[in-house]
Amino acid sequence: MIQHVDAHMMLTLDGFGTGLNQSRERPFGTIDPRQLARWMFEDADNNRAEIDAVVSYGAFVMGRNMFAAPGPDAWEPEWTGWWGANPPYHAEVFVLTHYSRPSIKMEGGTTFHFITNGPEVALAEARAAAGSRNVAIAGGVSTTRHYLNSGDIDTLHLKIAPLLAGEGDRLWDGLTAKLEPIAARHSKYATHIDYRVVK
Amino acid sequence: MIQHVDAHMMLTLDGFGTGLNQSRERPFGTIDPRQLARWMFEDADNNRAEIDAVVSYGAFVMGRNMFAAPGPDAWEPEWTGWWGANPPYHAEVFVLTHYSRPSIKMEGGTTFHFITNGPEVALAEARAAAGSRNVAIAGGVSTTRHYLNSGDIDTLHLKIAPLLAGEGDRLWDGLTAKLEPIAARHSKYATHIDYRVVK
Repeated sequence: MIQHVDAHMMLTLDGFGTGLNQSRERPFGTIDPRQLARWMFEDADNNRAEIDAVVSYGAFVMGRNMFAAPGPDAWEPEWTGWWGANPPYHAEVFVLTHYSRPSIKMEGGTTFHFITNGPEVALAEARAAAGSRNVAIAGGVSTTRHYLNSGDIDTLHLKIAPLLAGEGDRLWDGLTAKLEPIAARHSKYATHIDYRVVK
Repeated sequence: MIQHVDAHMMLTLDGFGTGLNQSRERPFGTIDPRQLARWMFEDADNNRAEIDAVVSYGAFVMGRNMFAAPGPDAWEPEWTGWWGANPPYHAEVFVLTHYSRPSIKMEGGTTFHFITNGPEVALAEARAAAGSRNVAIAGGVSTTRHYLNSGDIDTLHLKIAPLLAGEGDRLWDGLTAKLEPIAARHSKYATHIDYRVVK
């Protein structure tokens, strides 16, 4: 069996996955998550397959700002992510960071590991942890762009919400990967477009 | 019967319909039309419905730079558009401009009219010329954005090619219309996404 590496990302029409001024209170900064993720919150029945797919992996890699808002260099030990006591991953999650921190075992099988020796090592650890299952790059924008450009991602699953951000972190800025559409589907609050990364 | 107003537009992933430095030799400027329209040129059989739909209207409105490259204010009478002697519209086409010019009757039923008294008048003339058929806004980006924001467009048909432009005229910049996805389909070189303009 070939192990795949996928990425799932919510974007605005104008290509932003995060707005400006991300904070603990606003994980997407100036982008309103109730709008960006409206397809999940208000139309879950019609997007069940896509909602389930996001967390259907054997291990995950995420960027530092996907785990915590930008802040002081050192970790604040009470911060354990945005997802409460029982995060939706239920698997090993490898967080890219420059500052080491002990792993955090959460309820429901999620463990956050903090990887300080780079994205290649983080992905290798996730691949090993996933065993026979696939691996997902869980965001944010710059981490996903990194793994798209490095050729590590097989399929990019975009969920494009019909709103504009105007500024923030745009997936397209600096992207060098070549993409080919392989699926597209709409629901009321988002279009789901899947791209194969051409290698 | 209710007469609809649609718009069809090819965009890059990053939302550009035209690049920089549009010229007679490069109608899309720095965007390579062989890439932007590859779905038409190299995969026509799989995109037949969308190709036919673009020109299936009773009348059209287009911006000045959709008809001719930016240049001297006055029209050069030998320029009759990018489409040769027999343009694909086969209908009345109303070109927005600040400089009047006699109408040009082409082969195949296309006539270009040059409208100097604004987009409302151009659309009203197109509506009248279309009779019982629908009207299309044929581009370019700023003209389409204008009619999206004015609430005149019912459905926006995007054809998103998997390439990046980086700069040029981006549909999203300055868009105030609210959109709701109503259809999505992919082919190898483009995703076709249709949006209803929420009024």
